[in-house]
Amino acid sequence: MIGLYHTIQTGKGVFIHPSASIGQHVTIYDGVRIGANSVIGDYCTIGEPLHSFYTQENYIQSPTIIGANSLIRSHSIIYAGNQMDDYFSTGHRVTIRENNRFGSHNSIGTLSDIQGESVFGSYVRLHSSVHICQGSTLGNYVMIYPFVVFMNDRYPPTTHTKGPIVGDYTQVGVQSVLHSGVRIGENSLIGAQTSVHKDLAPFSFFSGNPGALIGDVRTIKDEMGNPLYPWPYRFDRGMPWSELGYDRWKEEK
Amino acid sequence: MIGLYHTIQTGKGVFIHPSASIGQHVTIYDGVRIGANSVIGDYCTIGEPLHSFYTQENYIQSPTIIGANSLIRSHSIIYAGNQMDDYFSTGHRVTIRENNRFGSHNSIGTLSDIQGESVFGSYVRLHSSVHICQGSTLGNYVMIYPFVVFMNDRYPPTTHTKGPIVGDYTQVGVQSVLHSGVRIGENSLIGAQTSVHKDLAPFSFFSGNPGALIGDVRTIKDEMGNPLYPWPYRFDRGMPWSELGYDRWKEEK
Amino acid sequence: MIGLYHTIQTGKGVFIHPSASIGQHVTIYDGVRIGANSVIGDYCTIGEPLHSFYTQENYIQSPTIIGANSLIRSHSIIYAGNQMDDYFSTGHRVTIRENNRFGSHNSIGTLSDIQGESVFGSYVRLHSSVHICQGSTLGNYVMIYPFVVFMNDRYPPTTHTKGPIVGDYTQVGVQSVLHSGVRIGENSLIGAQTSVHKDLAPFSFFSGNPGALIGDVRTIKDEMGNPLYPWPYRFDRGMPWSELGYDRWKEEK
Repeated sequence: MIGLYHTIQTGKGVFIHPSASIGQHVTIYDGVRIGANSVIGDYCTIGEPLHSFYTQENYIQSPTIIGANSLIRSHSIIYAGNQMDDYFSTGHRVTIRENNRFGSHNSIGTLSDIQGESVFGSYVRLHSSVHICQGSTLGNYVMIYPFVVFMNDRYPPTTHTKGPIVGDYTQVGVQSVLHSGVRIGENSLIGAQTSVHKDLAPFSFFSGNPGALIGDVRTIKDEMGNPLYPWPYRFDRGMPWSELGYDRWKEEK
Repeated sequence: MIGLYHTIQTGKGVFIHPSASIGQHVTIYDGVRIGANSVIGDYCTIGEPLHSFYTQENYIQSPTIIGANSLIRSHSIIYAGNQMDDYFSTGHRVTIRENNRFGSHNSIGTLSDIQGESVFGSYVRLHSSVHICQGSTLGNYVMIYPFVVFMNDRYPPTTHTKGPIVGDYTQVGVQSVLHSGVRIGENSLIGAQTSVHKDLAPFSFFSGNPGALIGDVRTIKDEMGNPLYPWPYRFDRGMPWSELGYDRWKEEK
Repeated sequence: MIGLYHTIQTGKGVFIHPSASIGQHVTIYDGVRIGANSVIGDYCTIGEPLHSFYTQENYIQSPTIIGANSLIRSHSIIYAGNQMDDYFSTGHRVTIRENNRFGSHNSIGTLSDIQGESVFGSYVRLHSSVHICQGSTLGNYVMIYPFVVFMNDRYPPTTHTKGPIVGDYTQVGVQSVLHSGVRIGENSLIGAQTSVHKDLAPFSFFSGNPGALIGDVRTIKDEMGNPLYPWPYRFDRGMPWSELGYDRWKEEK
């Protein structure tokens, strides 16, 4: 494809690695750093100023750091103050508000809406249309499915917010809601359309509205009687144990 | 930031107040009026023609009026025939179809989808991804949380639609559904993931799927035993009583 | 409106019918074919390359075919490998991933997210924000309402996926979830916020979370005692029987 012309706007203090590739109609605001081999799709905005930009004379823009080998698909908006480690990727039309910290190899699905001020481990996968409230904490290898909502206010509206905390390897099924401040232990499975209104121990299988503890995920078997969880023994696509197997990877780690 | 060049398209009969600011790659169709100090973000379309534009030779474009001090964030689409009073704001990628009437100080969250022909009071706040069907009525100080759906057809598909009516100060929790034609009284609280299938009196606390009346919101207390509702006594951010207090503001009003 | 300038990028092997109309800031990748009288809105991407474009040297782009009299509204993204028959239309910001096959007269609502590798009959209507997983099959005259999710993995994550199959004339209410591999017979009605976890016979009225069979749709009556289903006897807007009536149309067919 021949780029007829390129409408990229860049601000002050921007560093784009020479090996990175920037699409058409992209706006990059002050203080953005884009790592080696990263790709920014068309119509993206990187380093979007915070709301105070519109109201405060002395607005100061925080840096925005996108690691190497990242892929930001088209129409995405990333606010100032985010830090993404290497191999960060997004679907289309992702909105990421300010001051999140993402580990490496995160994948944020199309239309997901990250409200800001949250902490993500490594290898987190949000599928499409996930809504993460401010103040959330997600561990490593967490997977969240479409239309899940993380809430931070039990009796809205409030100024005392508290986001959920989700442990490593936990899976949260479509359209489930994590209520304000709940802690979900590692290796849990939350069914689809579930209301998670209380803390859950590791390895919980929890489902329904209102949600109820169904049992231990380690008792879930496939048709052949093989255990399905912990899932890293049967699924490794894009995971760091994909060549060694999960047990050996854990040992070496 | 230096704007390398500006790709704004404007139609006939457009009035943009000299103090307003228009972003990059914006399209403004015929008959749009943008008030003082308002900001239109990048990639927005204002005054989008109705479907009949594509099918009728004699299409007539209705005026689109955006009040003063408004902020339309990037990638938003506002159809012709809307009227927004002052201090209207949107998140990103909001879609607002034709012929709504918005009072002042409305805030429409990222990805919200307003189907048109609805009436909004003042100080209405829709959080992200709210879906408002045609023919809805929202009072003043109403707050709606992510993925809530307003429905207007009980046995789809139909041509006899009837939208919900929501009273002043009412809060509707995430992923709740308001069925066709329901009326929710003022000062009510609808829990998360709730099915609202019948009319509710003022001060109702209603929750669950199927939804059930839990009680009167005025009996909900915090850990110190203080009542949480009506909420204007404990929350005033961006509200007109923020300096006077709710009681005095009501008196003066 | 005067187009100040036009920023259309087109790739190799692109055919745009002379009667088609292309908006501003549109990108059309290699191998796209756009039929007579079709309209592509602003900020659209047609023929978006697959993920392997970023990782494989020898990436080959599949053709993308959009039939005649189609309307792709602004900000939509259509991946390579899709085939849409005539009278295809979308709302705004639709994302359609690779290799779907759409019959004629499909309408895909604003913000809908089609994950790819699925088969759609004719006259399918997805309202806003519908999520269709890979490997789904939708019959003719199917209507799906906002925030419905089609799932293809029962115990995530998995590589053995199986999408749902939905029969002709079936209606799926807002926020319902079709679990992996379920088959819904023709002429069924799924209520709002329903979990469809098992196969359903034709004419099923199924509702709730967990979902339960309420009865036969043919027993649902309006206030006058007239049957509401099958719905083609009472609704014909945009349907092929709109001039003949449903019975006569079926006979002639």
